[in-house]
Amino acid sequence: MEAHPALAAAASAALDAYAAATAEHDRATLAAVVADGADGTPTMRIDVLVENAVLAALSKHPVNVLTEETGWVDKGSALTLVMDPVDGSANAAAGVPLAAFSAVVAEDGVFTEALTVWLDTGRSWWAAAGVPSRLRTSGRKELAGAAVSLLRPHPANPGAAAAWWEVAQRAARVRILSTSCLEGALVAQGATDAFADAATDTHRLMDIAASVVLAEVAGGAVRDVFGRPIGLDTDLTKRWSGVVAATPELADELVTVLRDAHLAARPA
Amino acid sequence: MEAHPALAAAASAALDAYAAATAEHDRATLAAVVADGADGTPTMRIDVLVENAVLAALSKHPVNVLTEETGWVDKGSALTLVMDPVDGSANAAAGVPLAAFSAVVAEDGVFTEALTVWLDTGRSWWAAAGVPSRLRTSGRKELAGAAVSLLRPHPANPGAAAAWWEVAQRAARVRILSTSCLEGALVAQGATDAFADAATDTHRLMDIAASVVLAEVAGGAVRDVFGRPIGLDTDLTKRWSGVVAATPELADELVTVLRDAHLAARPA
Repeated sequence: MEAHPALAAAASAALDAYAAATAEHDRATLAAVVADGADGTPTMRIDVLVENAVLAALSKHPVNVLTEETGWVDKGSALTLVMDPVDGSANAAAGVPLAAFSAVVAEDGVFTEALTVWLDTGRSWWAAAGVPSRLRTSGRKELAGAAVSLLRPHPANPGAAAAWWEVAQRAARVRILSTSCLEGALVAQGATDAFADAATDTHRLMDIAASVVLAEVAGGAVRDVFGRPIGLDTDLTKRWSGVVAATPELADELVTVLRDAHLAARPA
Repeated sequence: MEAHPALAAAASAALDAYAAATAEHDRATLAAVVADGADGTPTMRIDVLVENAVLAALSKHPVNVLTEETGWVDKGSALTLVMDPVDGSANAAAGVPLAAFSAVVAEDGVFTEALTVWLDTGRSWWAAAGVPSRLRTSGRKELAGAAVSLLRPHPANPGAAAAWWEVAQRAARVRILSTSCLEGALVAQGATDAFADAATDTHRLMDIAASVVLAEVAGGAVRDVFGRPIGLDTDLTKRWSGVVAATPELADELVTVLRDAHLAARPA
């Protein structure tokens, strides 16, 4: 089984556009904020350059597209590509070689397959829901001893800061790679045990959608810290605190630890 | 000007051995602790496999070698290679693609050139002290607004935990890539503004030696949080809290912030 043609075309266009953008422009140019994206966050030039190339490549494909910058492109199809053309934009613009293209295909609202591509190396992770895969998580069931990737802490937010620190205290190892989709893929391949947004509600759908398919196929589980379902939603103002874990047990423990620490520490 | 033949031979052997080790062995095998290194920390099999290959490649070269596992190999030369064959061993063993070979050449005790090679991609950073280089730091002089890489926090150590959190509060962005030499190289190339061991005294000489040459050639500076000089020393029990920064001003500010927070928080 192979990737859906629209998914493959989008990834290929992203790889080419990313290579061209990083070769042709300096850091200040790539990092320049050129607009506010459809998701309400600032858009860097690197995001625009890659997203425009991907949308052009998708123009011939009869699929709807949901992206962080352009938003919802409705072609009346049963298929929707939920996509982050450049996950880890700050890394990409600065020259930290950890950025990813990541997308999931939703068919009548159900996630059916996902592809994450490490834009700096071309390495990719693909899976289709319900189809046997070579991806296999580490299988770890407990936070004690786990290697956990986290979004960077938000010290100004007492609840989120407490939640972040609680995981840092309980885990054996903490990383911050600043690229959610790549960190989710590393959980799916078993290189790290979990990845979480420590109750900051920073995640947009495209930051975690691909990880849902990749992690579940590999034996893992994806949750939201506050119990919100993670599914196709064209409202780009929605946020999640995603948890991608090697097993359902570890996902549940992380959710409990993060939520309890967040609740205990937030101002009354 | 080119890399010293011994440095080039060591890096080449490390690349080959790393590729072979990660292709032939599973994660548990690579991560197995097989000995205590000369530096007093546990040695994983991945470290031994790569270090042995590097030492074999260096057997024909008339240079002394100082490594974390084997220790001091004295050949009576004025030249010494201070080397970490696999920086980021935990990444390497787990399959997180962020590990580096890193070494510095010391001539009569003075660091003269350095080479860091990203083992997962072959990308390299080389510089000779006093020789113009294409490497250029970001030039940032203040912690406010800076992107800083840190070693993972040590929550059980009150002084170090306070120092870590203080930097996280003041910086614009924090990353933990778990590979000191690669993070030092990213400072030298201007992709991040600084990298620090937040007063945990985890750094061994080979974790920061190459960054001294790479960062200084690029306009940056390297300090120890507690003011200890960073130079050739065959006593592998010594530790530093290294700070690699884009400018001397930023290095000094980081040292002050880390030391003050550490002093204020440690138990009386």
